[in-house]
Order: sequence, then C-alpha cells, then structure tokens
Amino acid sequence: MTQRVADLSTPALVVNGPAVAANLDAMAALHPGPALRPHVKAHKCTSLAREQAARGHITFCAATPKELLGLAAAGLGDDLLLANQSVDPARLHALAECGARITVAVDSHATIDAAAETGIRELLIDVNVGMPRCGCAPGDAGRLAELARARGLEVRGVMGYEGHVVGLPDRATRAAKTERAMQELARAHADVGGDVVSGGGTGTHDLNTWVTELQAGSYALMDTAYGELDLPFAPALHVAATVVSVSTDHAVADCGLKALGMDHGNSRVDAGEVWFHSDEHVTFAPDRPVRVGERVLVQPAHVDPTIAYHEMIHVADGPGLDATVVEQWPVDLRGW
Amino acid sequence: MTQRVADLSTPALVVNGPAVAANLDAMAALHPGPALRPHVKAHKCTSLAREQAARGHITFCAATPKELLGLAAAGLGDDLLLANQSVDPARLHALAECGARITVAVDSHATIDAAAETGIRELLIDVNVGMPRCGCAPGDAGRLAELARARGLEVRGVMGYEGHVVGLPDRATRAAKTERAMQELARAHADVGGDVVSGGGTGTHDLNTWVTELQAGSYALMDTAYGELDLPFAPALHVAATVVSVSTDHAVADCGLKALGMDHGNSRVDAGEVWFHSDEHVTFAPDRPVRVGERVLVQPAHVDPTIAYHEMIHVADGPGLDATVVEQWPVDLRGW
Repeated sequence: MTQRVADLSTPALVVNGPAVAANLDAMAALHPGPALRPHVKAHKCTSLAREQAARGHITFCAATPKELLGLAAAGLGDDLLLANQSVDPARLHALAECGARITVAVDSHATIDAAAETGIRELLIDVNVGMPRCGCAPGDAGRLAELARARGLEVRGVMGYEGHVVGLPDRATRAAKTERAMQELARAHADVGGDVVSGGGTGTHDLNTWVTELQAGSYALMDTAYGELDLPFAPALHVAATVVSVSTDHAVADCGLKALGMDHGNSRVDAGEVWFHSDEHVTFAPDRPVRVGERVLVQPAHVDPTIAYHEMIHVADGPGLDATVVEQWPVDLRGW
Repeated sequence: MTQRVADLSTPALVVNGPAVAANLDAMAALHPGPALRPHVKAHKCTSLAREQAARGHITFCAATPKELLGLAAAGLGDDLLLANQSVDPARLHALAECGARITVAVDSHATIDAAAETGIRELLIDVNVGMPRCGCAPGDAGRLAELARARGLEVRGVMGYEGHVVGLPDRATRAAKTERAMQELARAHADVGGDVVSGGGTGTHDLNTWVTELQAGSYALMDTAYGELDLPFAPALHVAATVVSVSTDHAVADCGLKALGMDHGNSRVDAGEVWFHSDEHVTFAPDRPVRVGERVLVQPAHVDPTIAYHEMIHVADGPGLDATVVEQWPVDLRGW
C-alpha cells in the first residue's frame, strides 16, 4: 500500500528525497570526488552516506568511533577519518581492527599515545584555527608530527575546522575570517608536511580554497541557521507531527523536546507560531484552523541532535504531507 | 572485574544508586502506594520502575504508548495511564491488546473516538488547569464524560497537570497557584464523577492535597531546575565524560549536544565553567589543572531529554568518579 507522509506514525523524521539529491548533486559538482570528505555526524545514516558515495565521495569523516565502525561495516571503509580526539582504548582498538583504512585526528601527546598503543596507523594533526575547541596551537603542530613519526605513525597532514566562521551571515566577513583561519592551518601544514589539508564546512564550502578536502555534512539536509547564508542547498528535513489537542487560542502537536535538538531554540511549525516545547509536545498558536488528528510539519532548529533522537528517516518523493514515502533510511550510526 | 565510574567508556549516564533509593524512599513515605502514580517519562527505564514498584507504587503513568507497552511487557501492567492524548490507531490498538489495564487521557471528541474505535475501555478526562497545553476547558469536562459513557467507555475520573506551577521558586506562590489550578480540576471532577483525580508533580508533591494520585517522575533523579525549590530529593544523575583536549585557557570533554537535553541551557561540569556545547563536545574553562584522559562529571540542565539520548544507565554505589558501577539499567522505553 502506498504510504503518504501524512500516514506515518508520529513524530517521524521525513526527508524530501529530491531535495536531498539536489543538495548532494550541487556539492558534488563544486567539490567532486575526494575534494569532499562528507561528514556523517549530521545524518548518522549509512543509507545517506551511500548516496554520497554514489556521487563519487568515498572518503568520509565522523565525530565518533561508532559512526566510523558503522561506515566500515556498511562497506564504506575506503578512507575514514575520525575528525575528533579519542583516548578510549577499546574504541580505538576496534577502529584499528575493523578492516577499513582509518585515520585519527590528534592534538596532544596523550592522543598520539592512545593511537599508537591501540594499533592506529595514520594520523592528522588537528590544529586550532580560531574556535576554542580541540586542536593544538599552530606553532606546536610540527613538534607533534615529529613525535608521532618517531612512534612509527604515518602523519598524513593537518586538519583545522573554522567552526567559529561557518555560520557568520556576512559573506565578506566569512571570507576574511576563513582566510585568516586557513593561514594558520597552512603555517601548521608547512611544519607537518603530508598531502592532506582537511577542514571547512557547509558555510564556507565556496570560500575555503585552501583545504585539499572539505569536511562538509550539513549541506545534505541543511539547518535553518544556514538558511540565512544564501547557499545553493535547500532544507530537506522535517519532523511530521500530529495535532493531538486544540483549544481556543492554541493547539498542541506531538513533537517535543525528545524529538528535536533544542540547542538552537524552538522549532518552526507550518501551521502557526510556536509558543514552547515540552517533553512530548509543541504548543503553538495556529494561523489557520487545525483539527485533532491533522498532521503538521515541524522544522527543527538544529538537524544533527534532532536526528540523533530518531531510529528512522522516512524518505518522501517530494515536499509536504501528501508526498509518498518511497524508502526508509535507518539512523544506524547513533551513539558512541 | 570491578568497574569504577571513571572506567566507563564515555559519554555515559551514571546514577548514584543510594541517592536514587533515598529519593524513592522519601516519596514513598509521603505518598505511599497508589497515592503516587510514578511518571516514567523522566527515566524511560523499567529497571527504575521496578524499584518504584518495590516501594509499593504499582500504578504508573507515561507520555507515550511505547513507554506503556514496555511497562506491560516488563510485568508492570497492573494499572497504566497514558497521561497524554493519542489518535494513533495502531498504537492505541496495541495498548488495548497488551494485556495490561490501560487508561487513556482524552480531551476532545476526536480522542474519545480514537479510544473507542481501538478497544480502549477506560479513560480520564484531561482538564486544562492553567498551562496552555492539552486538556479541555473545565466547564467542558462533564459533557465529554457523558459522550464517552454513551460510547460504552468507563470514565474513571479526571486528570489535570499544573505544569505552569511546579517550577515556581516561591513556595507561597506555588501553593496559591496550585490551589487555584486544583479548584478548576475539582469543578471538572464534580461534573465528571469517578474515583480518580490525577495530577501534580515533583514541585508540588507536598502542596497538592487535592489529587487522589500524584503524577511525579522527576523526584527519582531530579533536575537542576528543581534544585532551587528546597525539595527532599537530591540530584542523582550525571554524565561521565572524558577530557579529550586541553589548551591554555580551555579544555574539552566528550559530552555534547547529542548526549544532553539542551532546552534548559548548558550543563554544569565539575571541573570548571562551561563555555559552550558542540555536537560531541563541551568546552569549559577549568578551575583546576585537567589532563587529557581524565574523567569529569557533567550535570545536565534537563534530565528527561538527556536520558532519551542514551541506551544505558550505569548505577554506581555512591557519588563521584571513584564509585563502583554495580548495575546497568537499560533505557528501554525510548521512542514512541
């Protein structure tokens, strides 16, 4: 039986299949093959990674060992990068043994030691290019590379993520700050050597001309925050919800805090103005008459932590509630 | 081999077992047996529900059909309430057939129809007592009860949740607003009849003397927001995390947006001041020297959506990182 988006049990993650395909095609045209190392942390889904591989990107990066192990188990292990630090011996050992080509980012003696002791063979030196998160000081990258090589590890190059830049709305500012960040990375690269300069993201995909591979992930489904940046990618993910209660001045649908990443604030509902979310509800002021049982589409403020709550992505053949569900993509890369 | 909290792979949900037991004991003394209908939405865990049942509470309420089906499958189906509206035929039918005693909250013709058509036999009329979410107008409850009884359904009474009151810091205000809300519920109850007046929560557990059963759930693990209310329950849940990167002015641990409910804001880290969270990281300014590989304890701002991200709760024999892990409680009631 044909199932429409409006027939799904809710809350249900829904992607507009043609919109996803267009996003993937657009990025593949701009960054073909290994010029893009898709980041799977945004979608956590091997089915979507296969769509990226089908467009020529067979190198991936991820934020957790479990994401990489899932890619390897799905036959997508040609060249996998843990774009994050780990000192977890069991997980690093599992990566070293999983049969895929594994590269791990390191930014300290301790992370180099952890890699060496667990059988990891290839590294990137993670460099802080301006965002206060992981990454060594640019001037320290060469010393760490030497240390790693002295321990018998292969250092493929450097990685640096301009996460403090990717969301800046003004393009000129974004460009200037990307250049500054990438000059830091280039300085580190000169000391480290190797073929790989990995970095960038969806918001700087057309500005960051310094990296050899772009680590973009959000472009596939797109976040509302990126909507202000005039990028050639369209929002493709919603949560379908059911109106369960209607009062005189508000209505309630079954899409709450446990179905949505909330760090970027409230979602948007296509039937009115959101007042607040509870664990299992969104209360909104309808801008048209709604009735109990009716479906609405909820756009999460942040895609990544939204998907991490769900087991399944339902793929529709177009936008809206009347679209037909044509495929199911398990969110099979959840957890750590 | 004995496992300490500091040995867990991270991020890992950890509860202080003795603190949970003390919370459960304290509430059982105040609201013994059926005077408490524990809400499982906070913990989503049949192991913890069993601890509540062992203290005499064998009636439960939940926010999703899946939570109730899990309780029924775990042998905890004596008297289960869906304290929420549903018009999902498949899920309501599964509840009707699961072998447990099931009662469903309704607040409209549509929800009564859905219950009647799927074989649900017992209802509570859900009354809006002041929070803009679900619930009929108090003056409409009697009419809905008549309608339900005319369809052959048993109406056990009323339910009303003073969710706009439970978190108010001033006790006198909380008491006055609870009384006002419960007067609305009593008015509806007079029209509806039945034995059950269900409502209240952790924040009004000692103020709401009108309900026949208190729907508290947060008391077991406690939220930071409730910490300001001087309640006889202690925070018992943390996320253990590993420091993965240390820089001159900040450090990073592996507990990010996908391990924490973020709707109440940033977590607290026991080793310094939190700057921000990313998908898999918390960046903080340490207030003492920290090193890569060291564990820290992260206190989430909101327990319920935090637990919903995790597969397992690790139960320790006390507070802190040196406590021994004595049990694992699967978070087996996730999803809808």
